Amino acid sequence: MRVLLLLLSASLSATAVAQSVPAPIDAVDPMIGTGGEGHTFPGATAPFGMVQLSPDTDATCALRACYGHAAGYRYDDPTIQGFSHTHFSGAGHSDLGDLLVMPQAGETVRMDPGDAKVPGSGYRSRFDHATERAKPGYYAVKLTDSGIAAELTAGTRVGVHRYAFPKGRAAHLLIDLRSSLYDYPGKILWSGLHLRPDGTLTGFRETRGWAPGRKLFFAMRFSTPLTGHAFVDRDTDVPYKGFQGPGRGSDAVAEKLGKALEARLDFGTLAAPLEVKVALSGVDEDGAVANLAAEPGGFDAIRTATTAAWTAALGRVEIDAPAPMRTSVYTALYHSLLAPSVWSDADGRYRGPDDQVHAAKGFTVRSTFSLWDTFRAEHPLLTLVQPAATTNDVVNSLIESRRNSPDGILPVWQFAGRETWTMIGYHAVPVITDAYLKGFRGFDADAALDAMVASASYAPYGGLGDYIARGYVPIDKEPEAASKTVEYAYDDWTIARMAGAMGRKDVADRFAKRAGNWRNSFDAKSGWLRARLSSGAFRTPFDPTAINYGSDYTEGNAWQYSWFVPQDQAGLFRLLGGDAKAIAKLDAMFDYDTSKLDYSHAEDIAGLIGQYIHGNEPSHHVAYLYSYAGAPWRTQERLAQIVASQYKPTPDGLSGNDDLGQMSAWLVFTALGFYPVAPGSNEYVIGRPFVARAAITLPDGKRFTVVADGLSPANRYLTGVRLNGKPLTRTYVGDDEIRSGGELRFTMGAVPDKIWGSERAVRPFSMTR
Amino acid sequence: MRVLLLLLSASLSATAVAQSVPAPIDAVDPMIGTGGEGHTFPGATAPFGMVQLSPDTDATCALRACYGHAAGYRYDDPTIQGFSHTHFSGAGHSDLGDLLVMPQAGETVRMDPGDAKVPGSGYRSRFDHATERAKPGYYAVKLTDSGIAAELTAGTRVGVHRYAFPKGRAAHLLIDLRSSLYDYPGKILWSGLHLRPDGTLTGFRETRGWAPGRKLFFAMRFSTPLTGHAFVDRDTDVPYKGFQGPGRGSDAVAEKLGKALEARLDFGTLAAPLEVKVALSGVDEDGAVANLAAEPGGFDAIRTATTAAWTAALGRVEIDAPAPMRTSVYTALYHSLLAPSVWSDADGRYRGPDDQVHAAKGFTVRSTFSLWDTFRAEHPLLTLVQPAATTNDVVNSLIESRRNSPDGILPVWQFAGRETWTMIGYHAVPVITDAYLKGFRGFDADAALDAMVASASYAPYGGLGDYIARGYVPIDKEPEAASKTVEYAYDDWTIARMAGAMGRKDVADRFAKRAGNWRNSFDAKSGWLRARLSSGAFRTPFDPTAINYGSDYTEGNAWQYSWFVPQDQAGLFRLLGGDAKAIAKLDAMFDYDTSKLDYSHAEDIAGLIGQYIHGNEPSHHVAYLYSYAGAPWRTQERLAQIVASQYKPTPDGLSGNDDLGQMSAWLVFTALGFYPVAPGSNEYVIGRPFVARAAITLPDGKRFTVVADGLSPANRYLTGVRLNGKPLTRTYVGDDEIRSGGELRFTMGAVPDKIWGSERAVRPFSMTR
Repeated sequence: MRVLLLLLSASLSATAVAQSVPAPIDAVDPMIGTGGEGHTFPGATAPFGMVQLSPDTDATCALRACYGHAAGYRYDDPTIQGFSHTHFSGAGHSDLGDLLVMPQAGETVRMDPGDAKVPGSGYRSRFDHATERAKPGYYAVKLTDSGIAAELTAGTRVGVHRYAFPKGRAAHLLIDLRSSLYDYPGKILWSGLHLRPDGTLTGFRETRGWAPGRKLFFAMRFSTPLTGHAFVDRDTDVPYKGFQGPGRGSDAVAEKLGKALEARLDFGTLAAPLEVKVALSGVDEDGAVANLAAEPGGFDAIRTATTAAWTAALGRVEIDAPAPMRTSVYTALYHSLLAPSVWSDADGRYRGPDDQVHAAKGFTVRSTFSLWDTFRAEHPLLTLVQPAATTNDVVNSLIESRRNSPDGILPVWQFAGRETWTMIGYHAVPVITDAYLKGFRGFDADAALDAMVASASYAPYGGLGDYIARGYVPIDKEPEAASKTVEYAYDDWTIARMAGAMGRKDVADRFAKRAGNWRNSFDAKSGWLRARLSSGAFRTPFDPTAINYGSDYTEGNAWQYSWFVPQDQAGLFRLLGGDAKAIAKLDAMFDYDTSKLDYSHAEDIAGLIGQYIHGNEPSHHVAYLYSYAGAPWRTQERLAQIVASQYKPTPDGLSGNDDLGQMSAWLVFTALGFYPVAPGSNEYVIGRPFVARAAITLPDGKRFTVVADGLSPANRYLTGVRLNGKPLTRTYVGDDEIRSGGELRFTMGAVPDKIWGSERAVRPFSMTR
Repeated sequence: MRVLLLLLSASLSATAVAQSVPAPIDAVDPMIGTGGEGHTFPGATAPFGMVQLSPDTDATCALRACYGHAAGYRYDDPTIQGFSHTHFSGAGHSDLGDLLVMPQAGETVRMDPGDAKVPGSGYRSRFDHATERAKPGYYAVKLTDSGIAAELTAGTRVGVHRYAFPKGRAAHLLIDLRSSLYDYPGKILWSGLHLRPDGTLTGFRETRGWAPGRKLFFAMRFSTPLTGHAFVDRDTDVPYKGFQGPGRGSDAVAEKLGKALEARLDFGTLAAPLEVKVALSGVDEDGAVANLAAEPGGFDAIRTATTAAWTAALGRVEIDAPAPMRTSVYTALYHSLLAPSVWSDADGRYRGPDDQVHAAKGFTVRSTFSLWDTFRAEHPLLTLVQPAATTNDVVNSLIESRRNSPDGILPVWQFAGRETWTMIGYHAVPVITDAYLKGFRGFDADAALDAMVASASYAPYGGLGDYIARGYVPIDKEPEAASKTVEYAYDDWTIARMAGAMGRKDVADRFAKRAGNWRNSFDAKSGWLRARLSSGAFRTPFDPTAINYGSDYTEGNAWQYSWFVPQDQAGLFRLLGGDAKAIAKLDAMFDYDTSKLDYSHAEDIAGLIGQYIHGNEPSHHVAYLYSYAGAPWRTQERLAQIVASQYKPTPDGLSGNDDLGQMSAWLVFTALGFYPVAPGSNEYVIGRPFVARAAITLPDGKRFTVVADGLSPANRYLTGVRLNGKPLTRTYVGDDEIRSGGELRFTMGAVPDKIWGSERAVRPFSMTR
């Protein structure tokens, strides 16, 4: 721990910590996670912004080599290719990087990005991290090759660029509609550019990427009129060019259509910096124009508004901690407020999962649902630290997505309104249950429950037909069958929970029964979750350390997956032979010697502590399971171990993909001292705090404060817990208790309290039944 | 002439003419023009229908060999590939053939069309013309290979298929979204299929064809539920397949996206014929679903409604003539009522030239504007034989298209709302002037004039910048410069005419001056229209017989183009040395010995009478020019020659592309005895009638009757003309005279009247000035 803090302090010299306690917005370092495996981006965005405007250091990857550039920017890269308007924060797969803009100065305008390995080639430019400034809603960098000072800011549906060109040199913008993240031949289906009479440049692009047939529209306005422009089609494979339009050359065209378009925009020599305001829309170009108008003002106005939005959003959690931890936690909070991002236009129209345009009434449509990741802690966090509208928007978006889904089900992994069929489960279901049981009512609960049941009943999806018929997914019919079986069973339990709360006993009973299906895939003899064949036999050979795609498990192995029974940890522990054996197995997992194993072939497997893999989600609740087994002091030890090794306030400080806020939400919760191990239980399991004090402004304005008396690196154990002044013997706290406001006061000490939490009656949900 | 009539009679045995005079709808033979170079289609359509549902005999052409299959169907082909929903009637270039449906019977469903040269291969089927029945709004054929009896009908935005499958054999439909007319690799950009919960199949296709980036949406409903289906992506070139959706195979998917999609739809064995109702939309799939609902009923109901519509539309011109001529003229009238076709959805929404969705208020948007062809006679004909709404819709569509044009100009050659930049001129201008001067007022005349001026002032288009600066288009800067110069000058004159009528003297004066620009491209020494260089010199070498793309002329040579001065034929004749020399040159043109010339390399050059090329539009007014020169009897002779040689009531009966009704409108006018040589003059030049009697119901309900006393093959000359009982000494009739209603009575004789019309004062517009 001491060693770690020294490292933290050293690394912080680069991010300029002020002597006084900085405001929350100044405690955020968007560079965290931009190196290593974090896959975050450093650019400018408003909370949950549709536009996430950020530099791409390399968008020229071949498909197999794209993983490290999933967010476009890698801290170690020497050049910036340009600034594009859409990014995922921490995804393991990717797409986006839409509408790449690169300013250029002087007479020659380069039209190709050049080689990422060859600084100075193409239109890309070298840059120096010393010139970079990244803050919530703001990013700046000096482009070394051209001498252009670039600044970015963003509103909800707009991004604004500001470029100061070297004095006396002609200003140009190059817009490369060919550029895309996770690029490959044939990805760009079609694109278009329209120069409107009022000087607005609108356009669109359709891509066959992670979201097949995704459409994105844009509108751009400039602070000074164009002095010239060229629209160029770089496609060399055009079997039929059609008839010639006006101008006949690449210049002087008001419209250009093609698969490989670029626009060169000329502005002459400018006395003032050039501002470029861009709006996006998933609906159409007019929608983008309307979105431009919906957020008035130039660079400074948009930046001021977004700074205010971030100040309000981050300020809902006041954190008192040493600077490195405060930076880590505020950055984590920042990262947890980027998705699910806004998808509907300012007028409510949006493109749905059926690729049709719909109109949302009374809520803002969100998309970018990385639900396999985010049902765990990201969504539960939003129910506490955001206005109620956020969670209601999320649930309404899920319901409406199901209504317009070609398959009639809730999103699995959705962005830009489109389903990608990535990862497993129907984890929109626990998100809705979590919201409903916590009292959110800004949606149609009956429609929600219908959608949940439909999603859990859709036979063609992921072996669900067999799961319903047999009680488990057979591995000879469906890959990753073991993971699917236990995740479906958990999701089923959350349906039962919500149906029960709604008085829908028939549904509740049916899904409560299905919630027990986890047992059908557990090998009671060995205690491992294993995949079964249609015959009923477990598949052999069996290796609990094997991690392969299409294996019994999803991005993991039996070590991680054998703990996933949030709805019935008691049942699992009984199956394992009791608390002591469960603790021994947990220890074996954390202390496993993996030095002889090679998981380098598997993406998303990072952040290993033995077989505990914090860089991926199936492990996220595991450290808290010691508490279920009556040993919360062991949870406290493991949390210290995880926080110290997996989160650092440095570019390479995230041990795995942030996964649209899930990695970050884990840290926010854990730092506060509790974690939602079983969303749908309405309980947060107490771990241990990592901040001296935190105060949450709850959705209804009440405040809930966490205090950690005596917190220090040495004092890593809980020696006392008081809720509103009264000793708390339970090792969990109820959502209603937090939501009522009050104070949770921890006392920290150097010696573990092995008595507190050891009684069965005080343990978290499912252990007390 | 006698020989011709024998030929006509013989060929008519195939089209079953009744003994009694058939109703107009029964006098139409949609097979006319489906062979030879007519490029018409035999399928089912309502007047100006958005859906033009017709068999495609071969949609597998490579790009260079597509010309003959521009409408999908060729009479001589031995097989039908399927039935698709969009076609051009008589275009010289093509596209469309969207949403090809082919019924199949039995256990095996073929998924590829097979080889057009190999009957029996693939899903295509042999057929026998004896089983075909083609009528306005109806088409039937027996598919020999499968034994399926196929029937097609269409409403305005819907098509309905009815398939009677052989008893006991399983019924299937194959939908091939790969199939397209003028096909080539890469044309299909993207397509999609959605099976909706109510059993409606919706989908879309985007193509890079003649209209780049064209989007078309559809919705299909079936008279009986599907028993099974498969959506298949036949694309072999998919660099990135993305994640797997439900079902993981080709079956059981509610959505499929790709570039090479097919759908196999199964219906089991059916007791009754299967009906398939299809709606199209240029807006979105929901628009197509709404269009389905907007025209209720099944096959018989739609057919009945469309039969009534055709009966009304064709019945506006009552024709009394021998059966072959009556068939030719009614079929010509039918062909002239197919375009400009409806493009807006039932709710008024439509996709504009900017690829954006707009809403039309108070009118129905038309598209498919082949204006270089149709400004001549097709649009003038519609002003007489259609309700006023048709012409007002056309003009409103043109104005609104300009409003949403990326280039800010009127359509040139537009379909599906998109500009193709085909052919030359700004011939939307004479269409609008013609409507305005004839008293149509259902549009904003100021907006119309603005659009006309804008289109005539758009420098980047077709050398217009140079034309405006120099008074001619220089051939070293712009191809086809001679044609462009004279056509711009004529269009300019029509702007002056409309501006003058509106009291806009400034505009009128400016464009009246520009109307004289035709002189700048005429070589006064030789009397030929020739292209000039920027230097002012005429380009050499010069060959008045040369026809080459990119030459001085557009689809023609100096012989045809040297007559195009509709606004100032007097000036032209003076330049040629007077009437006698003009007549001599006209004779030289018609009597030219072209036996040693080879024009086979040039598409659209067909129907030659010497250097008079009736199969293409630049010649269309030329026979009437004898009347301008004071020799109407020579016009009468030439018209007999043209009608006899260029129009036959047989599949190969059209000598050239019907060009969206222009070839046909020529015949309708000519058969009535007059022709609009100079749209914008409000005069119709008298030729000679080819029908014994015709009565037009004018837009306001008044009737105008034409009678030809003594008409016979031998009596080919006019010997008397009376308008409302009074002798008509003029060789033209005014639009106001026709529009007032009344009777134009011709007397025909075997000997020419060389006096009538020889005086300058009685000649058509421009000669009397």
